Amino acid sequence: MKKQGIKIVTIGGGSSYTPELVEGFILRHAHLPVRELWLVDIEAGREKLEIVGNLAKRMVEKAGVDMKIHLSYDRREALPGADFVTTQMRVGLLDARIKDERIPLSLGMLGQETNGAGGMFKALRTIPVILDIVKDIQELCPNAWLLNFTNPAAMVTEAISRYTDYKRAIGLCNLPVGLIAAFANLLEVDSERVSMEIQGSNHFVYATDVFVDGESVFDEMMNQYIANEANETMTNIHGIEFSSDFIRGLGAIPCSYHNYYYHHSEQLEAQLKEYEEGAVRAQFVKDVEDELFELYKDENLAVKPKQLELRGGALYSDAACNLIDSIYNNKGDIQYVDVPNNGTVSSLPNDAVIETACIITKNGPKPIAIGEFNPEINGQIQMIKTFERLVVEAAVTGSRAKAITALNLNPLIPSDDLANKVFDALLEAHLDYLPQFA
Amino acid sequence: MKKQGIKIVTIGGGSSYTPELVEGFILRHAHLPVRELWLVDIEAGREKLEIVGNLAKRMVEKAGVDMKIHLSYDRREALPGADFVTTQMRVGLLDARIKDERIPLSLGMLGQETNGAGGMFKALRTIPVILDIVKDIQELCPNAWLLNFTNPAAMVTEAISRYTDYKRAIGLCNLPVGLIAAFANLLEVDSERVSMEIQGSNHFVYATDVFVDGESVFDEMMNQYIANEANETMTNIHGIEFSSDFIRGLGAIPCSYHNYYYHHSEQLEAQLKEYEEGAVRAQFVKDVEDELFELYKDENLAVKPKQLELRGGALYSDAACNLIDSIYNNKGDIQYVDVPNNGTVSSLPNDAVIETACIITKNGPKPIAIGEFNPEINGQIQMIKTFERLVVEAAVTGSRAKAITALNLNPLIPSDDLANKVFDALLEAHLDYLPQFA
Amino acid sequence: MKKQGIKIVTIGGGSSYTPELVEGFILRHAHLPVRELWLVDIEAGREKLEIVGNLAKRMVEKAGVDMKIHLSYDRREALPGADFVTTQMRVGLLDARIKDERIPLSLGMLGQETNGAGGMFKALRTIPVILDIVKDIQELCPNAWLLNFTNPAAMVTEAISRYTDYKRAIGLCNLPVGLIAAFANLLEVDSERVSMEIQGSNHFVYATDVFVDGESVFDEMMNQYIANEANETMTNIHGIEFSSDFIRGLGAIPCSYHNYYYHHSEQLEAQLKEYEEGAVRAQFVKDVEDELFELYKDENLAVKPKQLELRGGALYSDAACNLIDSIYNNKGDIQYVDVPNNGTVSSLPNDAVIETACIITKNGPKPIAIGEFNPEINGQIQMIKTFERLVVEAAVTGSRAKAITALNLNPLIPSDDLANKVFDALLEAHLDYLPQFA
Amino acid sequence: MKKQGIKIVTIGGGSSYTPELVEGFILRHAHLPVRELWLVDIEAGREKLEIVGNLAKRMVEKAGVDMKIHLSYDRREALPGADFVTTQMRVGLLDARIKDERIPLSLGMLGQETNGAGGMFKALRTIPVILDIVKDIQELCPNAWLLNFTNPAAMVTEAISRYTDYKRAIGLCNLPVGLIAAFANLLEVDSERVSMEIQGSNHFVYATDVFVDGESVFDEMMNQYIANEANETMTNIHGIEFSSDFIRGLGAIPCSYHNYYYHHSEQLEAQLKEYEEGAVRAQFVKDVEDELFELYKDENLAVKPKQLELRGGALYSDAACNLIDSIYNNKGDIQYVDVPNNGTVSSLPNDAVIETACIITKNGPKPIAIGEFNPEINGQIQMIKTFERLVVEAAVTGSRAKAITALNLNPLIPSDDLANKVFDALLEAHLDYLPQFA
Repeated sequence: MKKQGIKIVTIGGGSSYTPELVEGFILRHAHLPVRELWLVDIEAGREKLEIVGNLAKRMVEKAGVDMKIHLSYDRREALPGADFVTTQMRVGLLDARIKDERIPLSLGMLGQETNGAGGMFKALRTIPVILDIVKDIQELCPNAWLLNFTNPAAMVTEAISRYTDYKRAIGLCNLPVGLIAAFANLLEVDSERVSMEIQGSNHFVYATDVFVDGESVFDEMMNQYIANEANETMTNIHGIEFSSDFIRGLGAIPCSYHNYYYHHSEQLEAQLKEYEEGAVRAQFVKDVEDELFELYKDENLAVKPKQLELRGGALYSDAACNLIDSIYNNKGDIQYVDVPNNGTVSSLPNDAVIETACIITKNGPKPIAIGEFNPEINGQIQMIKTFERLVVEAAVTGSRAKAITALNLNPLIPSDDLANKVFDALLEAHLDYLPQFA
Repeated sequence: MKKQGIKIVTIGGGSSYTPELVEGFILRHAHLPVRELWLVDIEAGREKLEIVGNLAKRMVEKAGVDMKIHLSYDRREALPGADFVTTQMRVGLLDARIKDERIPLSLGMLGQETNGAGGMFKALRTIPVILDIVKDIQELCPNAWLLNFTNPAAMVTEAISRYTDYKRAIGLCNLPVGLIAAFANLLEVDSERVSMEIQGSNHFVYATDVFVDGESVFDEMMNQYIANEANETMTNIHGIEFSSDFIRGLGAIPCSYHNYYYHHSEQLEAQLKEYEEGAVRAQFVKDVEDELFELYKDENLAVKPKQLELRGGALYSDAACNLIDSIYNNKGDIQYVDVPNNGTVSSLPNDAVIETACIITKNGPKPIAIGEFNPEINGQIQMIKTFERLVVEAAVTGSRAKAITALNLNPLIPSDDLANKVFDALLEAHLDYLPQFA
Repeated sequence: MKKQGIKIVTIGGGSSYTPELVEGFILRHAHLPVRELWLVDIEAGREKLEIVGNLAKRMVEKAGVDMKIHLSYDRREALPGADFVTTQMRVGLLDARIKDERIPLSLGMLGQETNGAGGMFKALRTIPVILDIVKDIQELCPNAWLLNFTNPAAMVTEAISRYTDYKRAIGLCNLPVGLIAAFANLLEVDSERVSMEIQGSNHFVYATDVFVDGESVFDEMMNQYIANEANETMTNIHGIEFSSDFIRGLGAIPCSYHNYYYHHSEQLEAQLKEYEEGAVRAQFVKDVEDELFELYKDENLAVKPKQLELRGGALYSDAACNLIDSIYNNKGDIQYVDVPNNGTVSSLPNDAVIETACIITKNGPKPIAIGEFNPEINGQIQMIKTFERLVVEAAVTGSRAKAITALNLNPLIPSDDLANKVFDALLEAHLDYLPQFA
Repeated sequence: MKKQGIKIVTIGGGSSYTPELVEGFILRHAHLPVRELWLVDIEAGREKLEIVGNLAKRMVEKAGVDMKIHLSYDRREALPGADFVTTQMRVGLLDARIKDERIPLSLGMLGQETNGAGGMFKALRTIPVILDIVKDIQELCPNAWLLNFTNPAAMVTEAISRYTDYKRAIGLCNLPVGLIAAFANLLEVDSERVSMEIQGSNHFVYATDVFVDGESVFDEMMNQYIANEANETMTNIHGIEFSSDFIRGLGAIPCSYHNYYYHHSEQLEAQLKEYEEGAVRAQFVKDVEDELFELYKDENLAVKPKQLELRGGALYSDAACNLIDSIYNNKGDIQYVDVPNNGTVSSLPNDAVIETACIITKNGPKPIAIGEFNPEINGQIQMIKTFERLVVEAAVTGSRAKAITALNLNPLIPSDDLANKVFDALLEAHLDYLPQFA
């Protein structure tokens, strides 16, 4: 990497998350000298990008760091010379997410932004775009690392792994960092001291070991978790707890997204109620965003506003900055990212993307060997990976058949008949963003 | 095997199926000289065994074959010298199956006799008994082959594979033979000419290739199946058809039990309706059985009555007789049975039992290599195997935790909360047969 | 396959083996109606082809079967409409083999026609030719089965598996049939009753189980073999026997080619002596061939002469005829052929070719699952497969580096220095046949 | 670990290496507070232990650190409370090693202290002793980490992995550290900045990637190595270089022990010459040792004498101290140690010990995933692991058959006949130390 400092290109730069990212770079500037930050967006997002870009400029100026903010509506202008590219775009914006959630609910099933019918359509919209971005990276800045925040991170990253020969894409998510924080809280130790083994895919990971200062405390933690002491701090979606025997038999700690599977009926009931009241989560998120942009416009604002932390996804920027930091500074620490399996687990293909503990050096992430998934969770992870692999194939080839098969294999979809119905309804709603199915 | 003829011991000999088995041996007597058939049952089944046993004796006498029928209430008396042992007992009888179906439905979920909560309890009741039988076989007739008909066949056979060192257990089911028959019908050829590749576990297999005279006709068949021409003859449970795109994307033909998964909502609705009307399938089966035993009592009856064919499981006896025939006569033909994986599929442990195409010789079944499950179905099969493995462990160790975890991982169970509830309700109902959970 | 009878094309038709093949087809004509046999050779082999072709015609005429013999010097003329293609050509003729043996011996190492430096060069000469033949088959008779006799059979077949998408190539060798015959002899039973499990690669297979009428007799056989009773009938090269403890510890029966590895020093000494006396095996074979062709010229000869059986490779034609028979007649019997691994053994890639027990039907050979090589022999087989894979790559790409590495990894090659020397000497000797290294 | 400082027990404490270990602990005392160092040896080694022990005491006193040296002739007295146990004993002393080298040479083959006939007998002598030590550790200090220096490290560590349930044994060797040093020298960077990927087993590893500051420099290094620039600094045994094409085709850098395989004939010739001159390496080592003990006796000596560095194995103590340091201080750095595979490589069993890059934390070493061995080296590594696994089994069970089979599979052993001869000669020579073969 260049001695004169780092160049970063953020695609989807007009996102409400950007101020967090900017703050992250400012705080780390002493050892992570970002000199250029290019915020790139599409024409349709010009208004937001200008608001966010101006805020970013004010933040940098106030902090007095030597970091230049560039705004661009043409990624090919921005990419040359980039050291890192981050992607946080949302194809179809929040309106598309609202449809992803509401349409499945209208047919009596969970939309689920990652692995349900809604998540599938997010993948179908996003994958062709990300593959185009990778093509540009390979041409214009082939040594840059791509950090993909865009959900569903596993499928998006796996599409790159399977359909390009670009080897520097890393998916990342704030969920693992959140697990670490929750475990630290529960164990009453500083989160820097906590590490873990996780097994699974993005938004579908289980913690299978937890360490404090490198020493396993998993058995104690499991006992504590089982004894329900854990539940106060392990906030789950809608606050539903797992039964002791389930966790004991599982021998692992599920993540919050597992609620959709292991509390399927309760989640469905709750979301149907929200749906009937017109209040799905995507709508809530949209309202928060509108409010944030109002704040961002304020020319006196020159720091990240507190309200952003309520937005959800709060630690995303931390995850990204830490990953960039460890690569740039060759830290050799452990982070939890989405990377091609490459033998980490013997029962998945090498090109399947998993979320797993990696050593991060200048050479990128190197996964710690797992060998085989724990037998108690192997089936569920394999099931979700089959779903993901079919969706990736459908996204690239435009095969309705692969998409329908993926839906049928997913426990959140109640039947073949409804799989066909929900697919058709979502396809119609999103047709503008799905040229491969035209 | 002894020159003087074959000795067979049938545990659960009082079953209504027995006349079919007897007929099978009579028809094959020229090349499969069964000289002794021991029908063994427990004291509680004495009445039925006597009825069935007497019918069997009349059948043999009428056919004029040299086969001696013995009735016994002590398997240790029967086993010495046995060449083949068949198990077709039903721990807790049909009353238990009625509970297996009704109790889950009372909580709003499918019981599903193989892989649902009901099937789990059938496994929990049966596995300790089968392990005891194997212990006796290993002591009294260690070279005998055990043919297990008792459902859930995959779990029962896997319990033997994992918890004993007896290597001569084979699970078998009439479903694959039924698939062959349906394919033959569809292709308008004699079923002897049809063979197939299947992937999966008992009651959860997919046909992934179909051959006529050894030549693959799969692509044509799939097209025909997709074009719906297949559906008339491929009778599915409740007659629901799969969508063309699902089958096309799957690249494989599901079996009838897959209706419980891919038509989950419709199946549930239909069975809840039956439940409310007091008419679950187990009750229907029981009524048919009662009727059959009335027929069997008729001292003028000396052949298998036609009505038995309506009973379901019609081809079981054929499956068993053919397997015994091929082992005894070292036929080297292909049959579809439940055996330890032993590397047939690389992503499952060696001791996991799969249902697969095997060459049958005097040395028993040898599976044809598969390598890896097709990527489109890998996840579902892995999921069901994880369920099965946990249930087997729960059955042997009496671990409520493993049982609850198994239920949670099963797509038929709507939530952790209901998993706990249905377990407790079924445990209470079946406690007499579940000493390991006492 | 066509109702009007089978068309077979034999490339390298001028081989001295051809009369055996013709005899094989004559004997099986009732159920294997070969109507056309095309014997194809290159211009340089015109004299031999005419001699052999005329003998073939006389044999057919004498037998009175309806089989037409065609001679051709252009395989593209012969291939259209072929049902089976057999390849038995020898690129560079026996003169090349003499060099393959003599040049390594001149440098103090075994040439070894399959896996040593000599075998490597046979592969380097043959693989480009076979890939051209496959290209023609794919164009002119894509549904034909290719039966490759040409040594080294594993490498030649693996080249097709890895560098083409043609799926109907089968390698075959008379060694497994010879093992069966030896076991039958030892066990004093008819060889039809004997079958086995083998593990390994061509000319490097171990028998890991032996059955009579499908029942394993391996333990008895091993004891007998260990007790040296086996050795009289198990003729080994130069008659050297393996020690009892070696066989006992191995838990498997090596093949005659293993002498080169496990009796390395004795084999080397013996061959060096032969070499100094000017009498390598290839020279002996050449003398026999010359004699045979003299016989073949005799216009009164209309049957396969007895002397051919002394030629070595006596059962090759039987192996080929049986394989064709089982495919054509969909026999479903077990034969031992060279096919892509496709998961038969989990620790080798799918495209690696192994020699293994297969069920033979109209759909071709389907391997019986092995799972993992026995731990006692895994290392040796992996070692030879690494050698073979590197040689295949060298043959296709013309990489001297891959060839040198292959030689270095081979236990028959004494050192890196000699690996380089023997490669250069053989390359110079065979340069006309190795355009890829030019 | 205890707040009051670390307790270390060194079995084979009378070794000439001990002063290096003591120096290592003195130098690291600030952050690695070793409070007790127990040097344990057998009665026969009393004289040496006293000499070394007194030197150690003088060294500690001179350095002024708070570390107590204890001498003991009963490991059960020493073990309670130990945090780390290191094993560096030599069963049969250097006299045994002289036999390990001379006897095979007398029969015309390399003894090879690790993987040849000599190394096999070192394993046969050592493994029963190490298993006894582990039994004591499990009883007296079950949470202690065992660092095994004793050669052959792979086999000794694998014996623990396969035949005990103790999970805290780590094998280690100075060879990887030596590779790092050589690479650093070649690249002209500080060795702290260099890391690598290695594949293989102890004394049989290949470097498959090399990093400076985490960034791969492998391609440049390979080119430099191939261009022979590397050879001056990559000192190989007897200074023989590998050919460029061999290395290019291998795509990996062999280690010095590979000379025994890839320069087999030259190594054998050179050692036979030494043997005839009565000067095998073990004899040389013994002379150096005698000299060292003379030096150690000097009561004025209170530091590690320079001459020890000539001894060979110079960096062993560094390797050990660094490993203890990283475990104690939870460093999370990468070290190269011998650990059970546990899925690091999918084609080896989980309990097979490999030498591989691991992250070292308080929880011990965690291997970085490899997936599959590079195809060019897979065969050789599998071959050596098969040898090692058979030797381990022979050592535990006393099976002559397994030992003979292991020798036969080893490329250094010229024939089955000589395998039997060398085994018998070595067995007779070492019988006192091989009760399992009595």
